[in-house]
Amino acid sequence: MKDYFKHHPWQIIEEGFNPHYHKIAESVFSIGNGRMGQRANFEEAYSGESLQGSYVAGVYYPDKTRVGWWKNGYPEYFAKVLNAPSWISVHVSVGDQNLDLAKCKVENFKRVLDMQTGLLLRSFTATFPDGKKVNVEAQRFCSMAKGEVGAIRYTLTPLNFSSKATLSLFVDADVKNMDSNYDEKFWDEVYKKADKKECIVVAETKKTHFQVATGIRYVVKENDQEIPLQIKTETREKFAGNIVEVDLQEGKVLTVYKYAAILSSENHPKEQLVEQCSKILNESVTIGFDKLFQEHSKVWEHKWNECDITIDGDVAAQQGIRFNIFQLSQTYTGEDARLNIGPKGFTGEKYGGSTYWDTEAYCLPFYLGTAEQHVARNLLVYRYKHLQKAIENAGKLGFKDGAALYPMVTMNGEECHNEWEITFEEIHRNGAIAYAIFDYIRYTGDEDYLVEYGLEVLIGISRFWAQRVNWSAERKKFVMLGVTGPNEYENNVNNNWYTNYIACWTLGYTQEAINYVKARDERALQTLSTRIRFSEAEAIHWKKITDNMYYPEDKVRGIFLQQDGFLDKELQTVHELGKENRPINQKWSWDRILRSCFIKQADVLQGLYFFEDHFDVETIRRNFDFYEPMTVHESSLSPCVHSIQAALLGYKDKAYEMYLRTARLDIDDYNNDTEDGCHITSMAGTWLSVIKGFGGMRIKEGQLHFNPFIPDQWQSYSFRIEFRGHVIKIKVSKATIEAILVSGNDLIVNFMGKPFTLVKQQSVVITA
Amino acid sequence: MKDYFKHHPWQIIEEGFNPHYHKIAESVFSIGNGRMGQRANFEEAYSGESLQGSYVAGVYYPDKTRVGWWKNGYPEYFAKVLNAPSWISVHVSVGDQNLDLAKCKVENFKRVLDMQTGLLLRSFTATFPDGKKVNVEAQRFCSMAKGEVGAIRYTLTPLNFSSKATLSLFVDADVKNMDSNYDEKFWDEVYKKADKKECIVVAETKKTHFQVATGIRYVVKENDQEIPLQIKTETREKFAGNIVEVDLQEGKVLTVYKYAAILSSENHPKEQLVEQCSKILNESVTIGFDKLFQEHSKVWEHKWNECDITIDGDVAAQQGIRFNIFQLSQTYTGEDARLNIGPKGFTGEKYGGSTYWDTEAYCLPFYLGTAEQHVARNLLVYRYKHLQKAIENAGKLGFKDGAALYPMVTMNGEECHNEWEITFEEIHRNGAIAYAIFDYIRYTGDEDYLVEYGLEVLIGISRFWAQRVNWSAERKKFVMLGVTGPNEYENNVNNNWYTNYIACWTLGYTQEAINYVKARDERALQTLSTRIRFSEAEAIHWKKITDNMYYPEDKVRGIFLQQDGFLDKELQTVHELGKENRPINQKWSWDRILRSCFIKQADVLQGLYFFEDHFDVETIRRNFDFYEPMTVHESSLSPCVHSIQAALLGYKDKAYEMYLRTARLDIDDYNNDTEDGCHITSMAGTWLSVIKGFGGMRIKEGQLHFNPFIPDQWQSYSFRIEFRGHVIKIKVSKATIEAILVSGNDLIVNFMGKPFTLVKQQSVVITA
Repeated sequence: MKDYFKHHPWQIIEEGFNPHYHKIAESVFSIGNGRMGQRANFEEAYSGESLQGSYVAGVYYPDKTRVGWWKNGYPEYFAKVLNAPSWISVHVSVGDQNLDLAKCKVENFKRVLDMQTGLLLRSFTATFPDGKKVNVEAQRFCSMAKGEVGAIRYTLTPLNFSSKATLSLFVDADVKNMDSNYDEKFWDEVYKKADKKECIVVAETKKTHFQVATGIRYVVKENDQEIPLQIKTETREKFAGNIVEVDLQEGKVLTVYKYAAILSSENHPKEQLVEQCSKILNESVTIGFDKLFQEHSKVWEHKWNECDITIDGDVAAQQGIRFNIFQLSQTYTGEDARLNIGPKGFTGEKYGGSTYWDTEAYCLPFYLGTAEQHVARNLLVYRYKHLQKAIENAGKLGFKDGAALYPMVTMNGEECHNEWEITFEEIHRNGAIAYAIFDYIRYTGDEDYLVEYGLEVLIGISRFWAQRVNWSAERKKFVMLGVTGPNEYENNVNNNWYTNYIACWTLGYTQEAINYVKARDERALQTLSTRIRFSEAEAIHWKKITDNMYYPEDKVRGIFLQQDGFLDKELQTVHELGKENRPINQKWSWDRILRSCFIKQADVLQGLYFFEDHFDVETIRRNFDFYEPMTVHESSLSPCVHSIQAALLGYKDKAYEMYLRTARLDIDDYNNDTEDGCHITSMAGTWLSVIKGFGGMRIKEGQLHFNPFIPDQWQSYSFRIEFRGHVIKIKVSKATIEAILVSGNDLIVNFMGKPFTLVKQQSVVITA
Repeated sequence: MKDYFKHHPWQIIEEGFNPHYHKIAESVFSIGNGRMGQRANFEEAYSGESLQGSYVAGVYYPDKTRVGWWKNGYPEYFAKVLNAPSWISVHVSVGDQNLDLAKCKVENFKRVLDMQTGLLLRSFTATFPDGKKVNVEAQRFCSMAKGEVGAIRYTLTPLNFSSKATLSLFVDADVKNMDSNYDEKFWDEVYKKADKKECIVVAETKKTHFQVATGIRYVVKENDQEIPLQIKTETREKFAGNIVEVDLQEGKVLTVYKYAAILSSENHPKEQLVEQCSKILNESVTIGFDKLFQEHSKVWEHKWNECDITIDGDVAAQQGIRFNIFQLSQTYTGEDARLNIGPKGFTGEKYGGSTYWDTEAYCLPFYLGTAEQHVARNLLVYRYKHLQKAIENAGKLGFKDGAALYPMVTMNGEECHNEWEITFEEIHRNGAIAYAIFDYIRYTGDEDYLVEYGLEVLIGISRFWAQRVNWSAERKKFVMLGVTGPNEYENNVNNNWYTNYIACWTLGYTQEAINYVKARDERALQTLSTRIRFSEAEAIHWKKITDNMYYPEDKVRGIFLQQDGFLDKELQTVHELGKENRPINQKWSWDRILRSCFIKQADVLQGLYFFEDHFDVETIRRNFDFYEPMTVHESSLSPCVHSIQAALLGYKDKAYEMYLRTARLDIDDYNNDTEDGCHITSMAGTWLSVIKGFGGMRIKEGQLHFNPFIPDQWQSYSFRIEFRGHVIKIKVSKATIEAILVSGNDLIVNFMGKPFTLVKQQSVVITA
C-alpha cells in the first residue's frame, strides 16, 4: 500500500515528479464524461514509461482470442475497450530540444485532480539540457455539458531565455492497445484533413466498423493577446497535425487553447461525422475555454449536490469516498441505454468488455440512490436489449426453447470471455440480472417495468435455470452440477449454495412477476406468452424444482455449505495462513488455491446479503463467523459486502476495516495494479458500505429504513438519497442522526425500526 | 471413416492422386528410424495443400505459450517437436514448366508404403500443360541401419519429348512449424556450404541451441551410366542447393540418387557436425543406394521377426496391426534413453512434447513383449533422469521435501502443458510412472532396477501423494481433492477413485520396494536415504494414509464411483445418446460434457485393468457393465483397455468391436485428424488388445499365462513374445493353440490356467 498522493477533501494531489508512479497517477488522474475519457497522459511528448489511453464509450474491437486449448463453446473474439485516437498533444521543442519530462530536469511538479469541478491541473518547471528553463501550466477537462468536447489550456513561460519554439498539435489515430493479443492495430484511416485552421482524422475500427472523428483547433495567445502564427501542416497515415512556430519571450506567458471534438458513428451518421466535428470545433473556439469550463463545472456542481458523501474528522476517508463517487459519475451518466459500466471505466483498457455482473450486483444501487430513476432503469433496459443475444449465447452451450444465459463479459450482448470455468460455469450472473429487476422495483416501486421489459428477461433466465438443474435419482432432489460461484477460487463445483439459491429464487420471483402482469394487464401477458411460446406448464415445472431443490448445509454448525464437499477441505483461517502466503493469488499455484478453503469474495455471504430478509440474524451471524475468517478478499468486490454484513451484525471494527480496504483501493494502489486503470465497479461497493453498511439503509415494504452507526474514527458523516421522487439528506454524528427531506412530499422514514414522518425542509434529529 | 487405402497384408497402397486426402496420406506414409522421420511429402515442388514435415529426435523448441488467462504455476513455454530442415527435394523443371502435381495432369499415380522393408515408393505419369509427358518413380527410406542417413532414388523418363531439364536439389532450413504460436520461425543459420559436390546447412534452434547439420549429395545416371553435369550452386539464408542441367532423352531413364545426412548436436560435438556430415555423405555415396537399402531392410526383417503379428482370414485386420507395429518400431528403437515416444512420432507436429503417461500406461508393455529388456528399461531410466525436474515441477506448485510430480507433457523433464485442469490436476500420471516400475519388474524379474533407479523415483512420487491428500475432519478419512482422472471429461473432481487407488497403491509398493532394497543392499538404502533425506517416519505416515483412505463407492450397485457425486448425474448410455450428439467433444459445449455422465476413456476401468488381480471377476464385470455403456471412447487410448477387459469378461463381440476401433484408427482416419499425424502411442494399445485381450496374456508370479480366444472373423492369428530371455511363438486357430519356444531354456507357460513345459523348438498344441 502506497501513501503517495496528498490527502485533501476535494482533490487528489501529486507533488514532485516520480516516473516510477507515473502510470498509477495516469490512472488515478483520469478524466471522463460518460461519452469519452482520457488517462492523465502528458500533453507534451514523453519518452518515459506511460500507458497512453483515450477512450470513446461504446466503441470496441473484437480482438481474436488467445487460447491455448480450445473448448467447444468459446467465443472467437474478446471485445476490447479500444484505445482511441489521441487528441491531447501539445508537443513543444525549443531549437533541437524537445520538452520531454524524461529528459529535462523537472522541478515543482504538481498534478491535481480537482474532483469538485472535474479539472485536471498540472504545473512544473523544466530545464532543458542546455539550461533553458520553462514554466508550464496545463489544465484539461472532458466536458460534462458537451459530451463530445475536450479542452486544454497549456501555458509556457520561458524563465531565462527568449527563442523561437515549435509546437506540434495533432490528432493521431495510429494508436494501439497495450493488450492487443497479436500486436495488431485496430484502426484504419477513413479520412483526414490538416489545414491551418483545423485537423481532423476519421478512423474506423476493423471488423466492427465504428467510425470516430477526432478533430482539433487551437488559439495561441501571448499575455492574453491572440498572436499570428507560422503554421505548417503535417499529415501521414492516420495522422493530421499542425506545426506552429512561435516566439517565446522571456517572462512572457504563451498560452495554447486547444479544443478537441470526438464524435462517434454511434451518435452521428457516418457521412456527417466530419461536418459535425468541424461544427463542434467551431462552436468550442467561439465559446472559449473559460465558458466551456464554467458549463462543465456547473454539471459537476449539480452531480455533487446529488451524490456527495461528507465525512468529518477523517480527510483520507473523505478523499477516498469522493474519489469513488467522482470516478463512477464520470464513467456512467445513465443517459444512454446502450452503455454500461466497464470494470476500468475510461481509466485503462484491461479486462475488456463493458459489462460484468458487477453492474447489477454492485453498481445499480449506487445509481438508484444518487440519480434519477431513468439512470438505473437504463441499466436494466441495457440487458433487456441483449436478451436475444443471451438466448443465442445459451443456445451455443446447448440450451434451448428461449433459455437465456447472459454473458460473463460483454460489449454488445455476446459473450467474449473464454475461461470455461468462468464463461460456461459462473452462471450465478444470470441470477444477479434477475435480482436487479427485483431490486430496482423494490427501490422505485416501478412495477410496470415488469410489463414492459422485466418479465420477458425473467422468463428467459428462469428457462435457463430449469434446464440447467437436473434430477438426481440418488438424492431424489434437483441438483446443479458444474458451476463456479462468486468465489472464483473454486471451479466446477456441484451445488454451490448461492447459485442454487438464486436460481430457485428467480423461478419463484418470475412466477410472482407473471401473476403481477396477469393481474395488471392480462393481454400483455398473452401477447408475450404467444411471442416467446411460454406456457403455464413451464411454470408448473419450475414449482417442482423450487419445491425439491437440494441445498448443501451443515446442520451441526447451522450453516449453509458453499458447495458439496466443502467440509472435506482442511479448514483454516486467513489469520493462520501467515503473510508470506498472501495474496494467495500471487503466492500459490492455482490448484493449491482451488483445494484450499480460502475464499476470494463473498459467496454464501453474497446470498445472505441479497436475501437478508429470508434469514434470521443469527443464521447470518453463524455463516459470517464461519466464512469471513476464511475470506482473503482478493477481489475488489469483496470488502464492501462484508462491511455491510459486519455492520448489520454489529461488528463495527470489522465493518470499518472492510470499508478502508474498499475506499482507498486505487488511491493507495492496494493491489499493485492501479497502473492498469482504476477499479470502477467496486467503487459503487464503497458507496454501498457507507449507505447500507454504516447508514444501515434498507427498503422494506416500500419504505426507507436506516439503522446507522458511526465509526469511532469519524466525527460525523452525511449523505443524500434519492427515493421515489424524494430527496433525503442524512447526517450521522456521534450522538445524533439528523434527517432532512430536501424535496418531495411528506415521507415516512424509519430509523432504528421506528417510523418518522419527514416534512420538506424540516430537520428531524434523532438521538442514537 | 474412410476406406481409402487398399487392403494388403504388408503394404499401404494409394492408387490415384487425390489431393483432398494428400495430407492424410502424408501422415500414413511417413517413414522414420527412431533418430529422424519424414512425412510423405513429394520430392518435387508441390503447390497444393501439404503439411511439410521433417523431424529429428530430441530436437525441440520451447515456443512461448498462448494463454488467455494466466494461472499461477503455468509453464512459460510449450516444448514443440520441431519441423527440421528439409532434405528430400528433387525439384524438376522442363523449360519454364515446373513438375508440380497440382498443375500437371497426373495419371497412374500410386504410392506404396512397404512395411516389410520400410520403403516408400511412388510412381506416376505427369503431363505438363504443353503436353510433354514424363514418367516418375521415386523411392525413399530413412536407414534403420545408419540412423543419420536418408536416401532417395528418383527416376524421370520423358515419354514423348527430349529436352533440357533442370533439377534443383537442396537443403532448406527456412522451415516453420504449422503450430507456431506467434508465427515465429525457430531456426537460425549457423553455417552453410554449397559446392558442386555437396550442400550442407547447419541450423541452430533459437533458445534451446540445438544444432542440426543437414547435408546432401547426389549422383545422376542415365540408363545406369553416371553422366557429367552442368551444375550451378545456389545459396540464400538457411538454404544451400545445386541447380543441375540435364538432357532428357525420350524413353531414356534418368535416375537421381540423392543421399542425405542429418546429424544433431545431441550426438556430435557442435564443432564436428560439418566434418561428420560430410564424412557420412561420402560413405553413403560410396556404399550406394542399393546396398544402403539392403542393410536397412535387413534391420526391418529382424524387427518383424521380433514383433510381427499375423492374422489369417482378415486382410484389413492384418494390415491394421502391422501398420501399428511398423509405426511404433520406427518411432522408438529403445537405444537412446534420452528419447521417448511422442504422441505423433515423426508423422506430425501436433501436441508437442515427446512424453505423456501413454508411454508408461500403454507403450511399455509393447516394448517389454517385443524387444530386448534394455529397450523397456531405457524408458524407465528416461523418467529417472527427469526426477530432479519432477521435484522442481512439484515445487512450483507448492510441494516440498523432495515430492515429485512428473509433467503431463514434456520434452526435457519440464512441464510444458498449460491447462490447469490437466497440468495441475491430472496427477494420476504420477501413479502410472510408479506402476511402470512395478510392471517392468513383474515382466522381467529385474528387481535390481529398484536398487539402482526405481526406489528413488518411487519415494519421490510417494512423497507427492502424501502431501497431495488431506485429512477430512468431516469424513475422518484421507481425501484427495481437485483432480482430473484419466477421463478428461471430468475436471477438478474430488476423490477420483482411480487416482485415490493408484496413489495408495504407490505408497504401499514403495514400502515393499524399501523392504526389498533393505534386504538386498542395506547400505544402498542408507546412502539413498541420506542423500534424499528420507526417514522411516515418512513411511509410517504413508501407512496411516493407506489405512485410512476414502474411496467413493456405490454399495447398492457394488461398484466403485468414478468420483464424489457421480451418481448425482443424469445416468444415460451412449446408445441412448443418439448419433447426432456424437462425438460429444465436437457436438457439445465443454460444460455440457462435464456435467454429463459420459466418459472419454477408461477411468475406474483403468484401475481395474492395472490392478485386475486385486479384484474378483464379478467386481470387474459390475463396473464394466456400469461404465462401458457410458463411455464414448473419444480418446485413441480408450478402446484397447476396454477390448482387453471385454475379453477377460468373455464379451467377445465387444472385444472385437473395440479392437477394430483401435487397429485401423489412422489408416481409416476414424477421428478425422490423421492429416495432423498418426496416433502413435495408442498403436501400442492395439498390440495390447491382441496380446492381452485376444491372447489373454498375463504375468503371474513370474510365469507367462495365456487364455486365448479367436474372433469369429479370423481363421487364426499368431504372435511372438520375448520373456526373460525366452522367445515364444503362439498361434491361435479356431480349434487349437500352438506354442513354440523359439529360443531360451525350457519354460513353463500356462494356458487356460494349466502349466505346460515348453521345450526349445518343439511345438505344443493345445485343443481349446
